Amino acid sequence: MITGKNCIGGTWKADGNIEFRTINPKLNIENPTVFLEATSQEIEEAAGSAWKAFKVFRKMSGAKRAKFLNAIADEILALDQELVETYMLESGLPEGRAVGERGRTVFQLRSFANLVENEDWRENTFDAAEPDRQPIPKADLRKTMIPLGPVAVFGASNFPLAYSTAGGDTASALAAGCPVIVKSHPMHAGTSELVAQAIVRAAEKTGMPVGVFSNINGGIQAGVDLVSHPKVKAVGFTGSIGGGRALFDLASKREEPIPVFAEMGSINPVIISSDAIAKRGSDLAKTYAGSITLGTGQFCTNPGLLLTVKGNATEDFIQELAKETIAIDPQCMLHPNIKKGYETKGENVISQSGVAVVGRFDGKLDSNYAPSIIATVSGSDFLKNPKMHQEVFGPFSLVVQCTNDTELIQIIDGLEGQLTGTLIAEQNDSLDLVEIVEALQNRVGRIIYNGVPTGVEVCPAMQHGGPYPASTDSRFTAVGTHSIKRWVRPVSYQSFPTGLLPEHLRS
Amino acid sequence: MITGKNCIGGTWKADGNIEFRTINPKLNIENPTVFLEATSQEIEEAAGSAWKAFKVFRKMSGAKRAKFLNAIADEILALDQELVETYMLESGLPEGRAVGERGRTVFQLRSFANLVENEDWRENTFDAAEPDRQPIPKADLRKTMIPLGPVAVFGASNFPLAYSTAGGDTASALAAGCPVIVKSHPMHAGTSELVAQAIVRAAEKTGMPVGVFSNINGGIQAGVDLVSHPKVKAVGFTGSIGGGRALFDLASKREEPIPVFAEMGSINPVIISSDAIAKRGSDLAKTYAGSITLGTGQFCTNPGLLLTVKGNATEDFIQELAKETIAIDPQCMLHPNIKKGYETKGENVISQSGVAVVGRFDGKLDSNYAPSIIATVSGSDFLKNPKMHQEVFGPFSLVVQCTNDTELIQIIDGLEGQLTGTLIAEQNDSLDLVEIVEALQNRVGRIIYNGVPTGVEVCPAMQHGGPYPASTDSRFTAVGTHSIKRWVRPVSYQSFPTGLLPEHLRS
Repeated sequence: MITGKNCIGGTWKADGNIEFRTINPKLNIENPTVFLEATSQEIEEAAGSAWKAFKVFRKMSGAKRAKFLNAIADEILALDQELVETYMLESGLPEGRAVGERGRTVFQLRSFANLVENEDWRENTFDAAEPDRQPIPKADLRKTMIPLGPVAVFGASNFPLAYSTAGGDTASALAAGCPVIVKSHPMHAGTSELVAQAIVRAAEKTGMPVGVFSNINGGIQAGVDLVSHPKVKAVGFTGSIGGGRALFDLASKREEPIPVFAEMGSINPVIISSDAIAKRGSDLAKTYAGSITLGTGQFCTNPGLLLTVKGNATEDFIQELAKETIAIDPQCMLHPNIKKGYETKGENVISQSGVAVVGRFDGKLDSNYAPSIIATVSGSDFLKNPKMHQEVFGPFSLVVQCTNDTELIQIIDGLEGQLTGTLIAEQNDSLDLVEIVEALQNRVGRIIYNGVPTGVEVCPAMQHGGPYPASTDSRFTAVGTHSIKRWVRPVSYQSFPTGLLPEHLRS
Repeated sequence: MITGKNCIGGTWKADGNIEFRTINPKLNIENPTVFLEATSQEIEEAAGSAWKAFKVFRKMSGAKRAKFLNAIADEILALDQELVETYMLESGLPEGRAVGERGRTVFQLRSFANLVENEDWRENTFDAAEPDRQPIPKADLRKTMIPLGPVAVFGASNFPLAYSTAGGDTASALAAGCPVIVKSHPMHAGTSELVAQAIVRAAEKTGMPVGVFSNINGGIQAGVDLVSHPKVKAVGFTGSIGGGRALFDLASKREEPIPVFAEMGSINPVIISSDAIAKRGSDLAKTYAGSITLGTGQFCTNPGLLLTVKGNATEDFIQELAKETIAIDPQCMLHPNIKKGYETKGENVISQSGVAVVGRFDGKLDSNYAPSIIATVSGSDFLKNPKMHQEVFGPFSLVVQCTNDTELIQIIDGLEGQLTGTLIAEQNDSLDLVEIVEALQNRVGRIIYNGVPTGVEVCPAMQHGGPYPASTDSRFTAVGTHSIKRWVRPVSYQSFPTGLLPEHLRS
């Protein structure tokens, strides 16, 4: 059922001659399907088709778009084991994760369907006319949100479903009335094609215009073609800083620059107070061993940096954290390249002066299974060396031992932008929690108190984004219903007769 | 009272040696004050001082920031005739305009003061915890908006008050909790300094931190220094496409890219139906002659393009429009360079093949007084030649005579992004108004029905922005209370104890 073809506005095509196959990272062998990268001409057709669809799609009622989104959810569920198995073969992730991520994907689609069932999400704003105002009358003004146009979505390597083909970017863009062209992630092109098939079926069943969705196979050139195309009006991306920044640069240099929301790297600092360590160090070690290794550490909210204050109890805690972490069975990474990146970047951090490895899984490991690593360094060494501030994507965490609270806050202030920051503390903690929260809040998008950063709830109050390089625009979120704001713009109607106003602005 | 110095976080300095003076455009002579351009070191100090201030300012209550904004309004009014006269000397604009624009400036400051008196503007969002949810509990999440950091504001040549030193960008940024560094427009550096003095007095009287405001004199290099500075976190600009785009490019290339909201050029298409011309052609000619020449055509919403459908009545209308337009006494432009730009750009359009001048003021004109021009061209010629689509900043309008409705809509679809679009029509018009509105809405930020685009109301439902190149980000507005959204970003608090939450998120 997986053809290896590109979906160009509902038609499956493979005119190109550049072939590739996905990899089963557990066995380190290629999966059987041969995929054909989309040609420039096919991308051109997808963009043209999306633009045509936009003219119809943007006028459709929210109820119709909601039906489409719900139908996508239904069709994804109908793929059943074929989807789950393809997902596992292409990602090395376990069945429970596949099923969980599918559930999240379906939930996101249905959340956006609910959101656009009525028109309140458009932030409709009304200013009544004041014909008698002096010195000049005030006109009637009504404002609403309209979609930007076709959106290019880049699938994420680490979330083949929830942040990929029918993930949050696609769901929010379609909900807003924007056609979507997905550049599938080459590591899970089969999963992407199955989901694309589900979307096409849903589009046909609910009477959507041809071109409302396309799915492109390809690498860097396909991404460049898409982001440069004049008919593409916005970009959604989840992935590395290098990749996101390249797309941002490309989009900014266009004759007509377009917004890029790229959610990128993060080391997600966790501040653990000495009081918390004294009171529940063992529990924290267990909890954080779990969070650090969850999904083989391949989450953008993985806690890669733990900030503590020096002391005997802290040293014991670090030992225990290392013990608990390496006691967890290593799991397989998504791809040999991800494994290679983990090794290189991990090595880069632990080879820095002052860094000591506290624990490192040293059993025998098959193919792409990753050894978890806990390392430690002093606050002053960390402050001096920005190379230690870089993300190590995988089951790795660096524990910084600060001399005192001042140094700890200095470290927070000096960090690059982050998706999350976490504060582990006690009531009446001796740490100045107000100061810590103040410092954290200016470096991150979300602050968690006495919890773990992994696990990103899909709800209106979620902020999944943050100052650069956590994202390219900290004013938006990638997760939750507010993520729809990325793809819309306001338009005002002045002194309009009722009949010409959009229906939801009439009263 | 005007010193020619730079205000560096409340201290008046002039360490540099590059001097300039402003010009009285009516007399075409230099005004007496010598201004000193800020040095790189002074800009460095302004940024450092703004960053320090940010750490205090961002924590201040909305009520305190409101007091500051109201005090700025009071201090501006207290400048009285000195401000009005300086404004007139530097801009050539008449006293009525000076007083009106001061009123608008004061109104904007007070509107933002009202807005931030309470915390509702922060789009506070609450998701309650669901500890019993299966399969995993849902955490309590609360989201609010926090300021981005110091904002660089560039004064606009055509609004020495309302879009400059204490204009909409400054008022909204201060309201949000962002310190502001203004790069004053060199054409009205004296007006800017007076307003800067008012802001500094207001800051002192209301106990604001040193560095909350700076005012920099200078040209391109000062702008480059400011936008490149790592402590500057956002940019507000009103002016030409060339200037706005240069700042946008600079900001996008930074190691940490920052948002630039540049409100730039626009020709503000006006669609005038044949039915409207038949019924009230003479009235429309009078109204539009007024709108085209208002403020010597130096408004970003000036109607530079009128789209009509060919016919005898249309020809009569164009003749009448030209007659009415040139009957209005020419006024002085802001600066010799603006006058030169008007001549060059106007000449460029009227020299294109197919363009005919219908009316051009040909009386004697002093110094920088501008002759109004009405020109006309066929729809097919206009479609073929994008040079005719360029803004001619001044009392100029090009009337396009389309063969039919289809051509008219084709022209709208082919336009670059615009701030406004206007539709002049009758009830039961023979023009397909629904189609026109649909086409317009995808090219503009605001649509006016049976009115004129000039006059931008300051209210929540206003959208002053639009697709590129009307602005660099169509998702935001430059005018109205929603313009505060440009300078803030969401932050979420997960599972927070009440005492650590910002006060407005506690219940």
